[in-house]
Amino acid sequence: MSETGRAAVYTDVGNPFEIREYTVPDPPPDGLIVRITAAGICGSDLHIWRGDIRLAMMGPGPRILGHEMTGKVAKLGANVRTDSLGKPLKEGDRIVYPYFIPCRRCYQCLRGEFSACPVKMPPPAIADNAPHFTGAYAEYYYMRDAAFVFKVPDELTDEMVTPVNCALSQVIHSLGTTGMKVSDTVVIQGAGGLGLNATAVARSMGAGTIIVIDGVPERLELAKQCGADEVIDITQDVTGPDRIGKVMSLTGGRGADIVCEFVGIPDAMPEGLNMLRAGGTYLEVGNISLFKTTAIDPSNLVWNNKKIIATVMYDPITLPNALDFLIRNKDRFPLASIVSHRFSLDQMDEAFQTAEWEGKKTATSRAIITP
Amino acid sequence: MSETGRAAVYTDVGNPFEIREYTVPDPPPDGLIVRITAAGICGSDLHIWRGDIRLAMMGPGPRILGHEMTGKVAKLGANVRTDSLGKPLKEGDRIVYPYFIPCRRCYQCLRGEFSACPVKMPPPAIADNAPHFTGAYAEYYYMRDAAFVFKVPDELTDEMVTPVNCALSQVIHSLGTTGMKVSDTVVIQGAGGLGLNATAVARSMGAGTIIVIDGVPERLELAKQCGADEVIDITQDVTGPDRIGKVMSLTGGRGADIVCEFVGIPDAMPEGLNMLRAGGTYLEVGNISLFKTTAIDPSNLVWNNKKIIATVMYDPITLPNALDFLIRNKDRFPLASIVSHRFSLDQMDEAFQTAEWEGKKTATSRAIITP
Amino acid sequence: MSETGRAAVYTDVGNPFEIREYTVPDPPPDGLIVRITAAGICGSDLHIWRGDIRLAMMGPGPRILGHEMTGKVAKLGANVRTDSLGKPLKEGDRIVYPYFIPCRRCYQCLRGEFSACPVKMPPPAIADNAPHFTGAYAEYYYMRDAAFVFKVPDELTDEMVTPVNCALSQVIHSLGTTGMKVSDTVVIQGAGGLGLNATAVARSMGAGTIIVIDGVPERLELAKQCGADEVIDITQDVTGPDRIGKVMSLTGGRGADIVCEFVGIPDAMPEGLNMLRAGGTYLEVGNISLFKTTAIDPSNLVWNNKKIIATVMYDPITLPNALDFLIRNKDRFPLASIVSHRFSLDQMDEAFQTAEWEGKKTATSRAIITP
Amino acid sequence: MSETGRAAVYTDVGNPFEIREYTVPDPPPDGLIVRITAAGICGSDLHIWRGDIRLAMMGPGPRILGHEMTGKVAKLGANVRTDSLGKPLKEGDRIVYPYFIPCRRCYQCLRGEFSACPVKMPPPAIADNAPHFTGAYAEYYYMRDAAFVFKVPDELTDEMVTPVNCALSQVIHSLGTTGMKVSDTVVIQGAGGLGLNATAVARSMGAGTIIVIDGVPERLELAKQCGADEVIDITQDVTGPDRIGKVMSLTGGRGADIVCEFVGIPDAMPEGLNMLRAGGTYLEVGNISLFKTTAIDPSNLVWNNKKIIATVMYDPITLPNALDFLIRNKDRFPLASIVSHRFSLDQMDEAFQTAEWEGKKTATSRAIITP
Repeated sequence: MSETGRAAVYTDVGNPFEIREYTVPDPPPDGLIVRITAAGICGSDLHIWRGDIRLAMMGPGPRILGHEMTGKVAKLGANVRTDSLGKPLKEGDRIVYPYFIPCRRCYQCLRGEFSACPVKMPPPAIADNAPHFTGAYAEYYYMRDAAFVFKVPDELTDEMVTPVNCALSQVIHSLGTTGMKVSDTVVIQGAGGLGLNATAVARSMGAGTIIVIDGVPERLELAKQCGADEVIDITQDVTGPDRIGKVMSLTGGRGADIVCEFVGIPDAMPEGLNMLRAGGTYLEVGNISLFKTTAIDPSNLVWNNKKIIATVMYDPITLPNALDFLIRNKDRFPLASIVSHRFSLDQMDEAFQTAEWEGKKTATSRAIITP
Repeated sequence: MSETGRAAVYTDVGNPFEIREYTVPDPPPDGLIVRITAAGICGSDLHIWRGDIRLAMMGPGPRILGHEMTGKVAKLGANVRTDSLGKPLKEGDRIVYPYFIPCRRCYQCLRGEFSACPVKMPPPAIADNAPHFTGAYAEYYYMRDAAFVFKVPDELTDEMVTPVNCALSQVIHSLGTTGMKVSDTVVIQGAGGLGLNATAVARSMGAGTIIVIDGVPERLELAKQCGADEVIDITQDVTGPDRIGKVMSLTGGRGADIVCEFVGIPDAMPEGLNMLRAGGTYLEVGNISLFKTTAIDPSNLVWNNKKIIATVMYDPITLPNALDFLIRNKDRFPLASIVSHRFSLDQMDEAFQTAEWEGKKTATSRAIITP
Repeated sequence: MSETGRAAVYTDVGNPFEIREYTVPDPPPDGLIVRITAAGICGSDLHIWRGDIRLAMMGPGPRILGHEMTGKVAKLGANVRTDSLGKPLKEGDRIVYPYFIPCRRCYQCLRGEFSACPVKMPPPAIADNAPHFTGAYAEYYYMRDAAFVFKVPDELTDEMVTPVNCALSQVIHSLGTTGMKVSDTVVIQGAGGLGLNATAVARSMGAGTIIVIDGVPERLELAKQCGADEVIDITQDVTGPDRIGKVMSLTGGRGADIVCEFVGIPDAMPEGLNMLRAGGTYLEVGNISLFKTTAIDPSNLVWNNKKIIATVMYDPITLPNALDFLIRNKDRFPLASIVSHRFSLDQMDEAFQTAEWEGKKTATSRAIITP
Repeated sequence: MSETGRAAVYTDVGNPFEIREYTVPDPPPDGLIVRITAAGICGSDLHIWRGDIRLAMMGPGPRILGHEMTGKVAKLGANVRTDSLGKPLKEGDRIVYPYFIPCRRCYQCLRGEFSACPVKMPPPAIADNAPHFTGAYAEYYYMRDAAFVFKVPDELTDEMVTPVNCALSQVIHSLGTTGMKVSDTVVIQGAGGLGLNATAVARSMGAGTIIVIDGVPERLELAKQCGADEVIDITQDVTGPDRIGKVMSLTGGRGADIVCEFVGIPDAMPEGLNMLRAGGTYLEVGNISLFKTTAIDPSNLVWNNKKIIATVMYDPITLPNALDFLIRNKDRFPLASIVSHRFSLDQMDEAFQTAEWEGKKTATSRAIITP
């Protein structure tokens, strides 16, 4: 390809995004080039933009952020004839793909534990260096040799599938690790993009009573539409003990079988652990900001035989499964309504400021960029 | 029975034990009366004696402490013909039994999660009230209707089986929940009674490299004899980062598949979590002192897909399995050597003072009482 | 109680049922007496009535058959204040209960494997001997001490809950053992009571494509309403290879993740095993007629890493979970429509002849008796 | 490489092996060329040689058979610097490697189920076509790009590691799928290479009573040395019911927790299923001859909640784990003694005739070739 493509480049905390134009590279033999059609702003993108997790993830230098996305095949690598499940693939086909790539050569990959591969997600590369297009906020995306790619069925719009490679796949995988049984009681801490998807997925997996906790009325309303039986409004049940007491009274004094953390605040963890029944399982997903701690009482875990499962990323098969889930449930749950705002590549600063929730109670569930 | 029996009664923190004499009760129809032949002093007994966990476990009043024990059938309940696996049972037979009783009527018991039954272990009863004999530091023990009881094979001495219903059964059950695979790398934090038993059990379950951490030379030596490949002496590797670094270098920079906490100090938990590989499992057993906290960074769990499994007590089948384990391994590992001191019922104060390890580096692995 | 109650007594293969009147016994201290309000005719009752499994299950003599049922508390045992989950229980309350009782003293029960307890279901007792009322086709039922009992929520009618202790609880438990993941492809062999419930449960657990196989148009239509995406009519796809080929073409040539046998014909097993993908799981539930064999090629299992899980009965917690499932899904799926015919105790012969499906293609999904 | 290498080529059933000389190919960029130092004759090689599984596995044409092997790096691919666990690799290093290669692009591989990959093991290639060296009975082996390779520690001899990539890795993986708990009772059907390795592995995983069944006295003696508590000699307990009765009496009338089939005769399966306790697990490994059936009674599975797990091949991590296992246990069990005969490449016909066991009772546990 001799064309060029535009990208919204992040240079440092507090700086506006800069639009830069780069040469679109040729695809590697087993990879491809994507023409991005939609990209989402996920909580973790906000963490990087805000500076929370910058140091640990990457050093200085211009980067293209973003990992939630969908697009069309712009150019196929020389060896590529099909997607990762053997469906024929040609230029122009709509596709999704995980934003991380298990190395398939490490100890964890040799055990089939793809999501625990230590090198599955390198930090975003320096944007000025070829192949340039390694993030979602750009017109193109360079997909490496070992990546996984899946065709998008026609029933699903770009908007519907934008967050599929992140929020929806993440919660399908994560809830799948909990051993949830039919009619298990589930508490969901946080009704942002992850929490709302998790509510719908838990409902679709046969959960019993689902209790969702958040402080934004619009989110709690969406949670009910996604299958929550009960909601706890943290602006009314202000303290942890209030909320724990409410969960206890909604579970016959026993506590929930499964409590899931999608808030991203460390103190949600000890609070949620106290909402669990003896023998219950705590699913920890939301806390990705590094070096923030919370006080845990290990004896509470021991005397009550509690488990904690922390998860990030997923097996590649989860992504096509999430597409199937979405087709079956797009009319049952308002998952597309989680996308609340749309911006162009030139409106990146406005997009991030709108999506920013910290310090203000926003109803923005998800903002997407259409480059 | 119209006889009486002696008991060493605990009245309050700091008080010496008092020998009191009580009428031996008749057994309930599905229970029995045990003539105790040996009782152990476990770390949790020291916690109660010291006052650490008194308030949460029981109110004031005289109590018979102790839960590690073995004995002979003194009198069978009217309906009892066999032990819990159907072996004929008669007076004089040597027996062991769990110190807790799942209710078999609660939510957890209906799911087959016996160890998570919330009422499985009531606090020790008031010693002056009938049936009096509800703890191990006495000549008799009153076994309730729903209890489980197992005959002791002749190959095993009383001394060998005294800690079987606690330390050995606990570690067999706990390690069984980790999903350990052949050649998995295991770190054992703490080489007291639990840790040494765990070392032997992990070795016998096919572990790969086993690394044991403690500060008492005699314990580290026993750990090696119980199957440890490597030991870390905390008097030499003084800081957490030192010890974490050592585990990393012993595991090719990757961290251990499984790390087990048998120390009973909350700060062992974050240290141990940092010794885990991505995707690894942390087994939390030792922290039973209530209301003590430690600072955990949830993002360390999330980014590395770590799991925490906390366990207390076990399925009843674990106890006869532990007897079988002991027969097979009594000559392979110096498990009987874990018992280091012996005392009579009249020497209870001396026994507890000897077993006390806090504040002084003692080599006492386990003290037993022969009432 | 000095009253009497009527029972439809089975005396031998080919004999009509006889109505006999027996004294209603007093309840045992931890049990209770039920006034049965509805009882179902399950496939296994037909097996006994027809003579298929008589010899293995029981010797000669008059018996009260039936195990699917619901009723009201007629008289509580002296110690009974609550149901098995702690809800207050009084005379007149509507209840359900498993038809089997784990002994809680055997090897399997000590491991928490209740459904594998070898003495969990004694054969029906001789009806003329006290306490007489040990089957469902009678006005009363004598519930033993160790039984489990659960209150029925008002939202559910007697008709809805009649098969809950058998078909619905069975499929919830059985599908729960398969490790089904969201979007897994599921084949259901047989659309009788078990198969239709299984279709609805698999759909509610997040299954992907569900394919149901049967030969009765009304059943296949109900299967679609219970969530089947595809149906295979064995009157059109007459041979095994035809049906296997159809499953293969509906699964992209790969085979299904999970295939479930609810037909009760041994040859369904090798056919279904050939519908599985490599690495898939076969769930065997329907074949309960003893001593009937089928030819299996073990190398097909080995080369394809297939698993077979056979299940009968369930953990007690499954029954209240099934009630919760029914409340959530009674308007989503036509599960109540599975009950197709109603009879009185005096119409037992007609009821069984109507329910009998062998040799004629009947649309009877389930017949119930209201004693 | 411009050198040539010798290979023992199989042309058809009944034909002698032919020694042919081929040009040694260059390695692919991510693969390597192995100088084979030892190769084993496995039961499945005998199946092919004998004609049992020829048609299904491959068409006509000259082939190099054999898959159990070890060797040294002859030439590294351009990109290869380390083995699959990151250890530096150079020419001359001793290595082992799985004989199959998961494609890492199929449905099963995307789920992390490597051993269920449908294209993990293509049939042996035509020997006369480049790269020629695709089997074990030759001087060289061409290792493809996606293969896994592991350095062999110095403590282990070539002879010890020859069967590691097949029998030992297979049984470690297979037993790992059974959920075996400490002190579980295990029956091993067949004491050939697989069965003897399985006996040692089960003993090392903490099994309780191990019962091994075979008809050759030397094998039963080796089984005892590998950890069997009891052996059943089929020349003395001639009928299935005899052997089932013996297992029942050795397990207190209950049956074994786990029964493992390593015989390779279909009728071993129903016999072994009858040796299982209710709730037990049958591990099927040995039956790899296609299209041979046996009669199974599905109701025996259902009424007793039995499971069948069939396995072939393993996760790649199993192979380095097997090396670790061998180092720890080479002096504990006579695993090296399983290798009983040694031959050169020119003695291939004699080697296969010696290894052949069908129809004669041979004591040959394993024959190896040193090319």
